[in-house]
Amino acid sequence: MSSKYWSDVVGKLTPYVPGEQPKLVNLVKLNTNENPYGPSLRAIEAIRGEVGASLRLYPDPNADRLKQAIAALHGLGTQQVFVGNGSDEVLAHVFLALLKHQRPILFPDITYSFYPVYCGLYGIEYRAVPLSESFEIRVEDYRQTNGGIIFPNPNAPTGRLLALADIERLLAANSESVVVVDEAYIAFGGASAIPLIARNSNLLVVQTLSKSHSLAGLRVGFALGHSDLIEALERVKNSFNSYPLDRLAIAGATAAIADTAHFEQTRLAVIASREKLAQQLAQLGFEVLPSQANFIFTRHPQRDAGELAKALRERSIIVRHFKLPRIEQFLRITIGTDEQCAALVAALRQILG
Amino acid sequence: MSSKYWSDVVGKLTPYVPGEQPKLVNLVKLNTNENPYGPSLRAIEAIRGEVGASLRLYPDPNADRLKQAIAALHGLGTQQVFVGNGSDEVLAHVFLALLKHQRPILFPDITYSFYPVYCGLYGIEYRAVPLSESFEIRVEDYRQTNGGIIFPNPNAPTGRLLALADIERLLAANSESVVVVDEAYIAFGGASAIPLIARNSNLLVVQTLSKSHSLAGLRVGFALGHSDLIEALERVKNSFNSYPLDRLAIAGATAAIADTAHFEQTRLAVIASREKLAQQLAQLGFEVLPSQANFIFTRHPQRDAGELAKALRERSIIVRHFKLPRIEQFLRITIGTDEQCAALVAALRQILG
Repeated sequence: MSSKYWSDVVGKLTPYVPGEQPKLVNLVKLNTNENPYGPSLRAIEAIRGEVGASLRLYPDPNADRLKQAIAALHGLGTQQVFVGNGSDEVLAHVFLALLKHQRPILFPDITYSFYPVYCGLYGIEYRAVPLSESFEIRVEDYRQTNGGIIFPNPNAPTGRLLALADIERLLAANSESVVVVDEAYIAFGGASAIPLIARNSNLLVVQTLSKSHSLAGLRVGFALGHSDLIEALERVKNSFNSYPLDRLAIAGATAAIADTAHFEQTRLAVIASREKLAQQLAQLGFEVLPSQANFIFTRHPQRDAGELAKALRERSIIVRHFKLPRIEQFLRITIGTDEQCAALVAALRQILG
Repeated sequence: MSSKYWSDVVGKLTPYVPGEQPKLVNLVKLNTNENPYGPSLRAIEAIRGEVGASLRLYPDPNADRLKQAIAALHGLGTQQVFVGNGSDEVLAHVFLALLKHQRPILFPDITYSFYPVYCGLYGIEYRAVPLSESFEIRVEDYRQTNGGIIFPNPNAPTGRLLALADIERLLAANSESVVVVDEAYIAFGGASAIPLIARNSNLLVVQTLSKSHSLAGLRVGFALGHSDLIEALERVKNSFNSYPLDRLAIAGATAAIADTAHFEQTRLAVIASREKLAQQLAQLGFEVLPSQANFIFTRHPQRDAGELAKALRERSIIVRHFKLPRIEQFLRITIGTDEQCAALVAALRQILG
């Protein structure tokens, strides 16, 4: 399908397809990496306090309160903080502002599948750098001419973590390029690269409240880095949409960031459930990649992943199956509550006979 | 300021500067065209009902409920409705998806000042077509080769309306281009071009809930048109951000659209206040352009607009003053409550002596 009214870029796009958001209830939904626990009650109270007549007024276009909360938490200045309508919007601006150069950018061959979509949107060339056979990022593979580097840490959908020492080597070897570390899942066990910002002006760290703060429904993400990098993002943002965060998102996210107790409690609960689930899957014969995320990437040597996903779905459990090279025999399973994980294990035990 | 890490486009951008959102209270804020009345109580109830544990879940990426409500209101199919994070985001996607062509696009010389910013962001050439001396769009001026046409109706910041018959002539004369009618202010007296969609596959109508539904703080805008045009917007949106509307915005906007009684009541109140304010300003010696918007565009033949804005600000009343060619002697004054309008008139009477 096409139309004479479309711009050239539209016809060439291959849009991203997000995981299914089913409208059915009573599903065990382990397909889009949502946190199984509800958000901070302080965040909920803050949102409630903002629901009223003041919605007639525009939000603060700079979301200063939120930037201040994030900056304070990480010991940064507010000029080192950029906020957006989910980390997907933040990443879109990053691609246009900091990754569109003459040379191709680099990212892993198995990674967040939105990256090549952004490249298509903005006409950015890229080279996919193969992960190792065990799905690890090898820093030495990125010692090649590039216009920028981006990868999730932990990587998605593998869950594998790159150590900070490796990130430091990557930064040092690529001082002429921006290195973007997409930390959507860093709360679940990995060490954040944020402390490296102080001495690496080419480092941009992107995070989101979707998983770590149980606020996927509120759409808040942010980027941290040298103020020159942040200024580039602000320029693009202010040429695209002055007010990406609504009043409720600003209020809720600011309170959620401040509620570090809730954050600690829920992330530790997810980590504990992940370790337990990984053991149980191994006992059922699954190969489980070591995960530092709120999901597990796993395959069964004797069973087709697509068939397993289908059999789970028949039992009202949905997981994510990517029909992509190298990983078509894997399932990505979000860590649910212990009850949901138990339901998953019981269903798999039944399916495997 | 620049940086070696910036893409070429960033350094060349001239970002949009929105009207001030002051953090002071007790201001009479007549500078950003917010509706003086609060939003629908049904919308507020709907948002309250959505604030809770379900915020851990992603929103519907397609916002189907909201699309259905908008489609039903206007007698369209849901495939003719696109929704976004405020009409600014919708417009951004429109520029990239439907207005980026070989030939320059056309818009009035005096218009929404975000249009040239979008052109800068996406590398779109444009020609600014001068309004008449009385600030009217002359359809015959748009009979020239173009890659698309966009204008607000009523126009901003003039408030002047283009009649539907003129829009039909414009559409007929430009059947090879997309014509975008940006109806941010149509609720306040003008006739919408939506009924023309059925027989004009090149017409796209953009609206927002910010002013008409007193929901500037919630960030919801939409576009209506032939399904081919909508498909182009969906493709860009799904290559940029899967979830532009959060759960609260979807719930609140859906309920607001359905509350037609509140919409009618508040828009009629704004219209009545506008007519009264226009008369009072004329009595003070102001020239007032005929407005069909929720603001008035006016100048005083003997007084400098910048000085008037400054004197009003000293009295805690803020209005918008654009330091731009042809309109630097005008003030754009949002219609407030009758009490706010009375305060404005009293202050002006004092300033004018």
